[in-house]
Amino acid sequence: MTSIGIIGSAGRMGQALAAAIPDLGATLVGGIDAGGDPAVLTRDADVLIDFSVPGALEATLAAARASGTPILIGTTGLGPQHHALIDAAAAEIAVLQTGNVSLGVTLLARLVRDAAARLGPDWDIEILEMHHRHKVDAPSGTALLLGEAAAEGRDITLAEAKVADRAGLTGARSEGTIGFASLRGGSVAGDHLVVFAGEGERIEIGHRAENREIFARGAITAALWLAGKPAGRYGMSDVLGL
Amino acid sequence: MTSIGIIGSAGRMGQALAAAIPDLGATLVGGIDAGGDPAVLTRDADVLIDFSVPGALEATLAAARASGTPILIGTTGLGPQHHALIDAAAAEIAVLQTGNVSLGVTLLARLVRDAAARLGPDWDIEILEMHHRHKVDAPSGTALLLGEAAAEGRDITLAEAKVADRAGLTGARSEGTIGFASLRGGSVAGDHLVVFAGEGERIEIGHRAENREIFARGAITAALWLAGKPAGRYGMSDVLGL
Amino acid sequence: MTSIGIIGSAGRMGQALAAAIPDLGATLVGGIDAGGDPAVLTRDADVLIDFSVPGALEATLAAARASGTPILIGTTGLGPQHHALIDAAAAEIAVLQTGNVSLGVTLLARLVRDAAARLGPDWDIEILEMHHRHKVDAPSGTALLLGEAAAEGRDITLAEAKVADRAGLTGARSEGTIGFASLRGGSVAGDHLVVFAGEGERIEIGHRAENREIFARGAITAALWLAGKPAGRYGMSDVLGL
Amino acid sequence: MTSIGIIGSAGRMGQALAAAIPDLGATLVGGIDAGGDPAVLTRDADVLIDFSVPGALEATLAAARASGTPILIGTTGLGPQHHALIDAAAAEIAVLQTGNVSLGVTLLARLVRDAAARLGPDWDIEILEMHHRHKVDAPSGTALLLGEAAAEGRDITLAEAKVADRAGLTGARSEGTIGFASLRGGSVAGDHLVVFAGEGERIEIGHRAENREIFARGAITAALWLAGKPAGRYGMSDVLGL
Repeated sequence: MTSIGIIGSAGRMGQALAAAIPDLGATLVGGIDAGGDPAVLTRDADVLIDFSVPGALEATLAAARASGTPILIGTTGLGPQHHALIDAAAAEIAVLQTGNVSLGVTLLARLVRDAAARLGPDWDIEILEMHHRHKVDAPSGTALLLGEAAAEGRDITLAEAKVADRAGLTGARSEGTIGFASLRGGSVAGDHLVVFAGEGERIEIGHRAENREIFARGAITAALWLAGKPAGRYGMSDVLGL
Repeated sequence: MTSIGIIGSAGRMGQALAAAIPDLGATLVGGIDAGGDPAVLTRDADVLIDFSVPGALEATLAAARASGTPILIGTTGLGPQHHALIDAAAAEIAVLQTGNVSLGVTLLARLVRDAAARLGPDWDIEILEMHHRHKVDAPSGTALLLGEAAAEGRDITLAEAKVADRAGLTGARSEGTIGFASLRGGSVAGDHLVVFAGEGERIEIGHRAENREIFARGAITAALWLAGKPAGRYGMSDVLGL
Repeated sequence: MTSIGIIGSAGRMGQALAAAIPDLGATLVGGIDAGGDPAVLTRDADVLIDFSVPGALEATLAAARASGTPILIGTTGLGPQHHALIDAAAAEIAVLQTGNVSLGVTLLARLVRDAAARLGPDWDIEILEMHHRHKVDAPSGTALLLGEAAAEGRDITLAEAKVADRAGLTGARSEGTIGFASLRGGSVAGDHLVVFAGEGERIEIGHRAENREIFARGAITAALWLAGKPAGRYGMSDVLGL
Repeated sequence: MTSIGIIGSAGRMGQALAAAIPDLGATLVGGIDAGGDPAVLTRDADVLIDFSVPGALEATLAAARASGTPILIGTTGLGPQHHALIDAAAAEIAVLQTGNVSLGVTLLARLVRDAAARLGPDWDIEILEMHHRHKVDAPSGTALLLGEAAAEGRDITLAEAKVADRAGLTGARSEGTIGFASLRGGSVAGDHLVVFAGEGERIEIGHRAENREIFARGAITAALWLAGKPAGRYGMSDVLGL
């Protein structure tokens, strides 16, 4: 049975990970938080999962390299210096860094990229998302990630194509744009829908998250995949074999 | 068989009406346009349908009153003076004036009003619509009509509750607001969805128009209902018995 | 603060109720199970919630009558003799008996009934539901409840209109029927959609449950409404003021 | 401008093709029906589109080979002998034979196959379709085509996985099955949705046809792509570069 150690175990994601690890047939070695020594984890863990803060990354990666332990990094807010640390570590150990740990969303993004690459510019691309009433920004990070995938499929940049504020006298839709719309309400964990609207037909590709536990499950599934992999830098797409 | 005369027969709606009248078991008496004399229609028509221009309304209503012919008025852009003319005519003949001739949308608005009246303020209301790429404004007039129905159910005004530009750092959703989101693309005739999002559950009430012929069908169905009715001012709700 | 006592506290629903009562601003007095004496609850509870077994009903109702405590009965499998007991108790205390404790589904059923009553027989009615992979029957009880509501709106019986096995060479759809379709998969708590399909347009009325806690919340909300009500037999519709 | 000749020009599809050809920037050379000589078309046409009857195929292919004219064959009901004729012709000219001329559905099938290949067996696959009230069979041919694509992605056969009659006491869902559900009503041209339901999340991939003209448009788009191609047997996937 694969054993997992958690960096950032007291955080929301850390707690969700601890709760879900047994369900997925793995063992929880233990967890640390601010001030904790990652070496206590690397002794027994087959793989580490890090959802802590960027400032802790250097010490965490040093411990992982020392013990040769693969690590999944889901910490957000990383800067170029953190990515340089990750690249250096990936020369010696297996590292998977990602801003999105849902396997469903990872697959969705690939499907969206492929569809956008195959459909001509006469198919308009629109991205809709709905989240709970407490969310403070729009569109969601996942909606933007899907927009990036669509733009990549079309060989354009999202920055030039993005339209996120459609209200009032907008005029007709400009060809080649990618529109975003956001709904907020209730306790919706996160729904996303990408619409390709052509003449007389629509293709719709969507994802519904029933709860936020799927992110913990996705991270653990990816960590189990990562355990035992050779040194290198991986992404969620690799877990799905994309 | 009920016979129908069209005011504004050369317009887009006039042509759609002429095409659909036989399908609905009625007879087309004829039509007139700018400069035409409505009296040629009132001789033989059991009911008139007017989708022309506000400037023609006075002469049209005079002819309808002279012959006692009921009339459905779908002309847009009416001002207070036109509504005064309609009220005066409705003292003598049956007049149905409306800005929306879809029976489906009329029913939807009623369902939305009823749902909003029954669900407490902890159910967030969001309205989504999608239309073809040529539409130049957002949200659609029908989305706003549905928002008015929701606001009426809650005993508030839409003006104070409406949020139509959700993008960027919006902060958490404000209780009691009614959000609007618009998608544009392809040749979509018009989809509308009203979402009531509560804690752990959602109620969704929507309408999909497959084509624009439904508006001609709705107008004809309403006109057939209007033929033979006593003097008075009617709305689409009356046709559905709401 | 309203205090609640639970009959059947060790069951799945009993536990969900206990967990949700504080969230809804109420107090949990305690709970009993097989062999427990309901009188220990009626001393302190303002209202009782019963999700136990039919065999316990007689003693429970006797205790509630003795103390004059209102009671919500969600126990399933009741027979005519149990309903007779409930009617007798309702002469003295407030009793709300229901097979469905979701306020959202209760409202949905009313909207479906109203829509069916207003739309003519040329609008075909179809009911779709999706549930998790462990569900052993189809269509769901809620789908059938929605079908009953549609049939009531049309002034027909569901038994004569129901079509639940559409596969193979079915022939064209028979006018006036109500079709059912069931999807099964994953961990879906319960989605329902009623489609009214007319010529060129569709009205869709649906409900999505994100989890099964909404049933506990609905029961508690209804119990809080019931506390202090005069003697009588009530239903979930009364809670919504329908 | 590419010129097109139609075999089966008096049929429903033939008429739709004739109406749509100018919209797509092509020229209609002419059409023939039962008893007509295909050689009158091959003189001037850059490409042929055949939506006639299997019995006409031999003479049509002979004429196409004689003139070296590429041909798209959408005729249904072909047997092994017809496929042998097509293979023989494809040694000399470009032939595209298909039972589905929608580019959107062709892409959808590919996305479904890819998703099924990437998601493990713990993701349940369900296929939903809705069509107009006149359709006499269920599930639709397109739903079955999507089921074949899903089965191919999973490396199983649809015959062993298909469940199309879910009603009554079905028991829990069997792992690895592919479920089908059909809705019928109104004038719906054709909606399809493939649901992949996992633990806590769903991926949904769907197609909506607004009208049946999209099939004529798809056939013409494919024929324009086929004109000028070297000898060989092609499918709709080739048109999309899949």
